[in-house]
Amino acid sequence: MQDVLGAALARVLRLPEPPALVVAGRTDAGVHARGQVAHLDVAEPVWGAVPGRSSLSPPEALARSLRGVLPPDVRVHRVGVAPPGFDARFSASWRRYAYRITDSPVGAPPLRRGDVLAVRAPGRGLDVAAMNLACANLLGLNDFAAFCKKREGASTIRTLLEFSWSREPSDDGELIVARVLADAFCHSMVRALVGGALAVGAGRREPAWLAGVLAARVRDGAVAVVPPHGLVLEEVGYPEPGQLAERAQQARAVRSL
Amino acid sequence: MQDVLGAALARVLRLPEPPALVVAGRTDAGVHARGQVAHLDVAEPVWGAVPGRSSLSPPEALARSLRGVLPPDVRVHRVGVAPPGFDARFSASWRRYAYRITDSPVGAPPLRRGDVLAVRAPGRGLDVAAMNLACANLLGLNDFAAFCKKREGASTIRTLLEFSWSREPSDDGELIVARVLADAFCHSMVRALVGGALAVGAGRREPAWLAGVLAARVRDGAVAVVPPHGLVLEEVGYPEPGQLAERAQQARAVRSL
Repeated sequence: MQDVLGAALARVLRLPEPPALVVAGRTDAGVHARGQVAHLDVAEPVWGAVPGRSSLSPPEALARSLRGVLPPDVRVHRVGVAPPGFDARFSASWRRYAYRITDSPVGAPPLRRGDVLAVRAPGRGLDVAAMNLACANLLGLNDFAAFCKKREGASTIRTLLEFSWSREPSDDGELIVARVLADAFCHSMVRALVGGALAVGAGRREPAWLAGVLAARVRDGAVAVVPPHGLVLEEVGYPEPGQLAERAQQARAVRSL
Repeated sequence: MQDVLGAALARVLRLPEPPALVVAGRTDAGVHARGQVAHLDVAEPVWGAVPGRSSLSPPEALARSLRGVLPPDVRVHRVGVAPPGFDARFSASWRRYAYRITDSPVGAPPLRRGDVLAVRAPGRGLDVAAMNLACANLLGLNDFAAFCKKREGASTIRTLLEFSWSREPSDDGELIVARVLADAFCHSMVRALVGGALAVGAGRREPAWLAGVLAARVRDGAVAVVPPHGLVLEEVGYPEPGQLAERAQQARAVRSL
């Protein structure tokens, strides 16, 4: 997505090469994003030369031009001038992801097979109540090393603000949806969390087991990292404009690259 | 779909060639179906040889085998032994279709671009109230020749039971959804009806105009047949088992092939 958007920006802004983009959530390959946020620096003369339209402001004109250039699987919702101190990645105060699953024996609905994981669950299907019990134990400020791909020098401490499951109606029948909210996520963290919850939901582990995995702070063989296609970055939250720079400074200090 | 299902049935039932399938709604190329119904005749020895499983009835075993053989874009919800007199096509008392549209300037949501049509609508978007006014005038037993591809000897008289529009929330924001219900549809009829409604919704025609198109009983240049991908056959309705044969006889008499 980042490459495609960079190329489109270069074309529309008539830049010699794709500009450096900073994105809020660097999703793993195959993960979708509905609420991605990115920022870039645009030099004053380039910005001034954005082709205006009679009734459109420069950001609106840029959004419209990008829509004409981007492929149908990348859409731009809005373009705006960022407030001072804004950093799409480090100013973010939270990210919200969703993971969608079906436990129907029919399999994934054809029209949703690109964003819904089909799982086999014995008997009466996934035990969503047990999954919620297990996941509630992970909330708060914790070391999520057990659910993170290890990277040298990178912290695995995060604040998990929400991790809940519900059966929700859709045009394609009921889906099981995880709602996962944290200040930030390390690599493959949501997919490992979902894999852990599934071990409980399918009855292979007791709800209390998942807290034990967290406490052990090492990868557990019973926690499968689920495929990327069920995962969607839904929304990114930012503090009030006055606190953007401060928040970015804090986040940079805590999550060294 | 029909070819794919036929080949899968031949494989699972070990037939020398794909069996003749009768489907409830023969959708145009590119149209989706969530609630398609099909029937076929299976000889007693073939049915008796459906590989049983300890806990599964023959229809359940057949459904499971088909799921293992079919590609992910064709799913079998249920297999059952049809009641006497049942004909998937001619016993049906109604078909319900949905057509999904977005008038957002952003375009079709990437995850729904395979089943949502993006339309450009000036100003405040499509006027759904005007579309509902226009479409209500088409309800009832009418000659839909103005919305049908002409076929020699085929009737274009149908009973339109519902044709309504609403803005509905979805995971990808608000969609504009048409609900179209009739005893049966002729070729490209739903897509032409939607095209007529769109001319009204976009303000190119007044609501009363659509009833005039119907009354003229000839194709109207202002009625564009919309693309197939926004259309889904959602559900097919059948009468009580005792009336299946009678209903099939009636439908065959009215809608000569």
